[in-house]
Amino acid sequence: MAVVVVDVMPKREILDPQGQAVAGALGRLGFDGISDVRQGKRFELYVEGEVTEERLAEIRRAAEKLLANTVIEDFRVRVETPESHT
Amino acid sequence: MAVVVVDVMPKREILDPQGQAVAGALGRLGFDGISDVRQGKRFELYVEGEVTEERLAEIRRAAEKLLANTVIEDFRVRVETPESHT
Repeated sequence: MAVVVVDVMPKREILDPQGQAVAGALGRLGFDGISDVRQGKRFELYVEGEVTEERLAEIRRAAEKLLANTVIEDFRVRVETPESHT
Repeated sequence: MAVVVVDVMPKREILDPQGQAVAGALGRLGFDGISDVRQGKRFELYVEGEVTEERLAEIRRAAEKLLANTVIEDFRVRVETPESHT
């Protein structure tokens, strides 16, 4: 079972009050050196069978239609592999 | 400016009604072959200066305290690098 991850983040030019609230709270809790926080969504899609290019293109269409509001959000689709984490 | 990403996801044993709603909607929209969806949060932390091991440990503490509810959520902290995306 492959996992495809869709990251949905507010566009850079869009205000992100949730992220700002987190950044403010981090400062108040004494966590310094963090200049900005952006908060978005992460979807893990469990895909049956192999993840082909067509399958990924279909998931990109689904992300555009359902998972992200592309007026205010950017999204990125990627296959989750163990090596992609540090 | 380095970016540290904190992924917060519902624990595997916890029901995820948001993810289930997304999975159902994908099916109704005709996107087949996706057996399950989990929805979580993604935080991008813009860190001033270098990301040292101590800095990462501090961010892990911040994630535990503020970003994740560790009773029902797991989190993962990683440094965002261009190579970590496909």
